[in-house]
Amino acid sequence: MSQVYGRVALIGLGLIASSMYWSIKRGGLAGEVTGFARSEATRETARRIGLCDRVCDSVAEAVEGADLVVLCVPVGAMGPVAEEMALHLKAGATVSDVGSVKKAVIEAVAPHIPEGVHFIPAHPLAGTEHSGPESGFAELFDNRWCLLVPVEGADPAAVAQLRAFWEGIGSNVEEMDADHHDLVLAVTSHTPHLIAYTMVGVADDLRRVTDGEVIKYSAAGFRDFTRIAASDPTMWRDVFLTNKEATLEILGRFTEELFALQRAIRTGDGDLLHDYFTRTRAIRRGIIQAGQDTAAPDFGRGKSVK
Amino acid sequence: MSQVYGRVALIGLGLIASSMYWSIKRGGLAGEVTGFARSEATRETARRIGLCDRVCDSVAEAVEGADLVVLCVPVGAMGPVAEEMALHLKAGATVSDVGSVKKAVIEAVAPHIPEGVHFIPAHPLAGTEHSGPESGFAELFDNRWCLLVPVEGADPAAVAQLRAFWEGIGSNVEEMDADHHDLVLAVTSHTPHLIAYTMVGVADDLRRVTDGEVIKYSAAGFRDFTRIAASDPTMWRDVFLTNKEATLEILGRFTEELFALQRAIRTGDGDLLHDYFTRTRAIRRGIIQAGQDTAAPDFGRGKSVK
Repeated sequence: MSQVYGRVALIGLGLIASSMYWSIKRGGLAGEVTGFARSEATRETARRIGLCDRVCDSVAEAVEGADLVVLCVPVGAMGPVAEEMALHLKAGATVSDVGSVKKAVIEAVAPHIPEGVHFIPAHPLAGTEHSGPESGFAELFDNRWCLLVPVEGADPAAVAQLRAFWEGIGSNVEEMDADHHDLVLAVTSHTPHLIAYTMVGVADDLRRVTDGEVIKYSAAGFRDFTRIAASDPTMWRDVFLTNKEATLEILGRFTEELFALQRAIRTGDGDLLHDYFTRTRAIRRGIIQAGQDTAAPDFGRGKSVK
Repeated sequence: MSQVYGRVALIGLGLIASSMYWSIKRGGLAGEVTGFARSEATRETARRIGLCDRVCDSVAEAVEGADLVVLCVPVGAMGPVAEEMALHLKAGATVSDVGSVKKAVIEAVAPHIPEGVHFIPAHPLAGTEHSGPESGFAELFDNRWCLLVPVEGADPAAVAQLRAFWEGIGSNVEEMDADHHDLVLAVTSHTPHLIAYTMVGVADDLRRVTDGEVIKYSAAGFRDFTRIAASDPTMWRDVFLTNKEATLEILGRFTEELFALQRAIRTGDGDLLHDYFTRTRAIRRGIIQAGQDTAAPDFGRGKSVK
């Protein structure tokens, strides 16, 4: 692996940025990595654990002289941050991001990008239910996808350089347009998260009735939902507010299907249920074959739950 | 550990029965374990891999002389199997089961239990998305709950013996009544499974449109749902058909909550979403503190996805 950018600035120091930093170091992908976080407590934590070569106290200082600036803040904060840093960007630099939605980020950020600076949105499909500067680890992106969403007229050389950077981080890289990205992610990530949050919320109401039994007897299914529903609240609020259209569309289809299965339960239509459950099993096999998960049973918990 | 029953008969040789067998052997909990499966192919597999001390070709042969008979067939098959074995049960024997619902099992099985035989329903809260005789492993029940649901007038000594058996298998044992069991499980397991099946079904429709992208870019959330939705179709069909009332009740609450969140997305009510997502995070912490899951990120996949 060798250096792809001279200086990289990470704006926002949560799970994604901290994982990027450790991965950049592992691969020797940048000469220097600066970092900035809005919260003083986060900056202090970053300094204490050696996260970033230099933690800066302002966005301006962090982006100054950077060849790549990566916005790693919640989607709703990207516009204001882009505005704040605009005047301090180096000519010829690339601005990118790691947001889970792309149309809204492009609308919010693109107007602030000065002439002579490249803007290449990106979305690494990786994460865990933990958040904050101490939750990162270098392997987070290994063999995961990173989707680049270049805007019209993007400079091919700048795109190629960003691709090399993400490949150095360990990802498989593909390009996609913003509309399509937002729809695919509404299916594979956003709607499932909303559903998991909802189910855990229902159980929370019931928990008061059943005196802790929901937690105590938390079985496969619910237990797994709680993990998904433990993800960062600010990030997910912004995802739903900014990918509203696609999420509502997929939610509509979900409700339609759920009502059909609910009706099958009510009427006792076992054949419909059995056929449905057989079909969904095949998708699981597809995901394992595509190398996006392991075949180890029960999330690999089987022999090791402490 | 020492012997709890002289002879144990396992009826049905899938994930649960095969895990029980390996665990019984690990703990030396029975003098002999017989096994029966309806399918000849399953019996052949069991013989090939050494599952059960003796694989029998009929229910009658398997239960003859058994001190404990455990029904490990799908819930919908339990009534007919109980009827078939009734005349062959040893006086003073205990009949139990591992079904995910309890009211329907009691209604189906109890009428067939002869005078002088104990019937003590049970439900080990453990499983994986894999099924069949080759999917079992001795550690499946370690530190998981097993709920005993004794019917009115159950013999305390017989209940104590079954408790000792499940503790020997590695479980924590509690008693619960059937109605309450079915409601708690509708929340912690049955409804989450139906929701996961539904979401994966929606994606399957969409997959045809997006040419495999749903699988390719399967991210946290959906990927985890596919694991849950890969569970045994027959078992789950029977669960929903036999725990209809509680599942429909919880589904009603789920839909109500989902519509509230959907409305918040549509109207842009970020505070409601943020509050909701913060509340669900606390439940996750409760589950980890209760020892029912690990705190390792992303289902422990972080550093090891192949």
